[in-house]
Amino acid sequence: MAAASSDAFRYAHAHRAEIAWMSQNTNHLVPPGIVARAIDRALEERVYEEYPYAPGDPELRALVLKDLGFPQDAGFFLAAGGTEALYALTRALLAPGDDVLGSDPSYLIIHRFVELSGATTRMPDIYAPPFRLTPEIVEANLTPQTRMILLIDPLNPLGSGYPREAVRAIAEIARDRKLLLLHDVTYRDFADAPTSAAEFHPEGTLTVWSVSKNCGLAGLRLGGLVARPELVRQVARYNTNDLGVNVLAQRAAIALLETKAQWIDGVRAQTRANQDRIREAARGWPGVELPVYPSQANMFVLDVSRTGIAPEALQNELLYRHGVFLRSGAYLSPAHGGRFVRASFSNVPADIDRLLTAFPLALEALRPKLPAS
Amino acid sequence: MAAASSDAFRYAHAHRAEIAWMSQNTNHLVPPGIVARAIDRALEERVYEEYPYAPGDPELRALVLKDLGFPQDAGFFLAAGGTEALYALTRALLAPGDDVLGSDPSYLIIHRFVELSGATTRMPDIYAPPFRLTPEIVEANLTPQTRMILLIDPLNPLGSGYPREAVRAIAEIARDRKLLLLHDVTYRDFADAPTSAAEFHPEGTLTVWSVSKNCGLAGLRLGGLVARPELVRQVARYNTNDLGVNVLAQRAAIALLETKAQWIDGVRAQTRANQDRIREAARGWPGVELPVYPSQANMFVLDVSRTGIAPEALQNELLYRHGVFLRSGAYLSPAHGGRFVRASFSNVPADIDRLLTAFPLALEALRPKLPAS
Repeated sequence: MAAASSDAFRYAHAHRAEIAWMSQNTNHLVPPGIVARAIDRALEERVYEEYPYAPGDPELRALVLKDLGFPQDAGFFLAAGGTEALYALTRALLAPGDDVLGSDPSYLIIHRFVELSGATTRMPDIYAPPFRLTPEIVEANLTPQTRMILLIDPLNPLGSGYPREAVRAIAEIARDRKLLLLHDVTYRDFADAPTSAAEFHPEGTLTVWSVSKNCGLAGLRLGGLVARPELVRQVARYNTNDLGVNVLAQRAAIALLETKAQWIDGVRAQTRANQDRIREAARGWPGVELPVYPSQANMFVLDVSRTGIAPEALQNELLYRHGVFLRSGAYLSPAHGGRFVRASFSNVPADIDRLLTAFPLALEALRPKLPAS
Repeated sequence: MAAASSDAFRYAHAHRAEIAWMSQNTNHLVPPGIVARAIDRALEERVYEEYPYAPGDPELRALVLKDLGFPQDAGFFLAAGGTEALYALTRALLAPGDDVLGSDPSYLIIHRFVELSGATTRMPDIYAPPFRLTPEIVEANLTPQTRMILLIDPLNPLGSGYPREAVRAIAEIARDRKLLLLHDVTYRDFADAPTSAAEFHPEGTLTVWSVSKNCGLAGLRLGGLVARPELVRQVARYNTNDLGVNVLAQRAAIALLETKAQWIDGVRAQTRANQDRIREAARGWPGVELPVYPSQANMFVLDVSRTGIAPEALQNELLYRHGVFLRSGAYLSPAHGGRFVRASFSNVPADIDRLLTAFPLALEALRPKLPAS
């Protein structure tokens, strides 16, 4: 399984010019000129020769805090991707014996980091309406050892968004029990009305951000953590980026955050239009269901359990025969990964065309044949 | 001290166009066109939109292994800088109660990572000829708890290189006692005849490499680890870069490693010429001594203890009054950091001119005045 997945990525990268890349929730809709100009200027200045300013470019810090709605004196921790911020904070703040409340499905890389720290992740099943945590599910799954709640909003892989009242209620549970609340806001710019959990639980909220998805910079690996300064200090002790984070990534992110207001609505509109097209088409694909629609993110899940087709086989058929790269669910859900593929759709319309052509052909090719009577 | 140092970096970055950057062993001599072309091509392909291939670009892997003289089937771990490889391997391979044999002076970021894992660093004093570890010093400082030896060759900050026989003897001690040998080869391209410790202790040698110094890419944060595959697997469990390492950094490194033979001799020659000029000038600076000359790296130490001037004051005078950025020794040596500044010199000749003008002026300005008689 791991080997098969690694092979798929190897193949996709080797053929990337021909691949419709819908496997990693990446965003292919941000105008490229802004990035190219910012990086060209940085290349002229040869800024790559020096180490970056270790705490992060002050301009980037100011833009991120403003973008997320935090005051300029909030604690700020820059990392080579939101993932690294998650890695550092789990190492810093969790200990063997701690419980962390996650979910199934979830973005399981976080769970793996939790487990590296010796803590345990509890994973209540949320593969049923409303396809996200509720205050009731949270309450029912707390233990005396619970130290942290994971609130991924919108949630990868399902695309479920948290209404303001749900964020508030979960944040207040965390506050009242003095728990840490990990608020992963990677997909917030795709949501209709994102809510900041820190508003309700400033003491214990760890807001993890990334420019991989909203700004389309996944390949540059830039993200971080915002929290109260004392919490950030605890995390920073476990910083893996003592010498700073890639300076070209910082320059590109500055340029995109400065101009975000000009292009984000276009990204969002195209992403929603793509989503609608896939949903319309999927109505005609027998046995295929969309548990969450509309998604509040740039991805959703196509449940194929009623087709009798294994998601891994579907992934491979789509990739190797049609050049359409979706992702089978196994790496996102121990309980339900065998039921779905995940498709992301911040893509040019031509990629969506290819998906809509390929998907029914792949279903047809893989559909279990009835035994001859 | 930490605050003062952070202020110095803030100032230097804010004024970088006017600063002679000799504080971080960075390399400003690599022809810039190669990097710019490689990155421009990557920007045209918009490779930054996708996550990088997580195990690292296969072309980069092949080039690094060839460059370091390892077989193509060696274990390979890519990270956002050699520093991150050090972070991951110390977390993966050390445990509370372990001893690690380092030195004083040393590149203390490694020591800090060792200590985050709960292990302890022993730091024999090597601030005396030959200004590096010897097999005798190693033997005398092993304990029953010793798990790892740090062999930084050439050694930051002193610039001492390890003769082949010293590498062999230390590697054989590690081999015979079944110890891990961390061989940090960040500065190897500046040495006359670098030796691979893995040649003598393939089982337990962890070779940590970086393109920050040889390729002048410090700002792009790219490096990694080469070791036998089973050791790399243990380290990879603690990978902070599950989603890959900055793709522009990888493209730049590929372009520079492919062409290294064309430009590295020029870099080395200019670096040595700069070193010689500083040494000549330093003969005329009263009280200033060069413990290691010639340096086998692109930096050395200027011992100012006999001038009565504090290295921190000298750093600040040079930076704020003359725009010449050296680094005071405190972050490199608990025992001797109060005696020296470190200067790196992979710089254009104009930077060396500025240092040679500024240094005696700074000494004069700071020299303790004799009490009026």
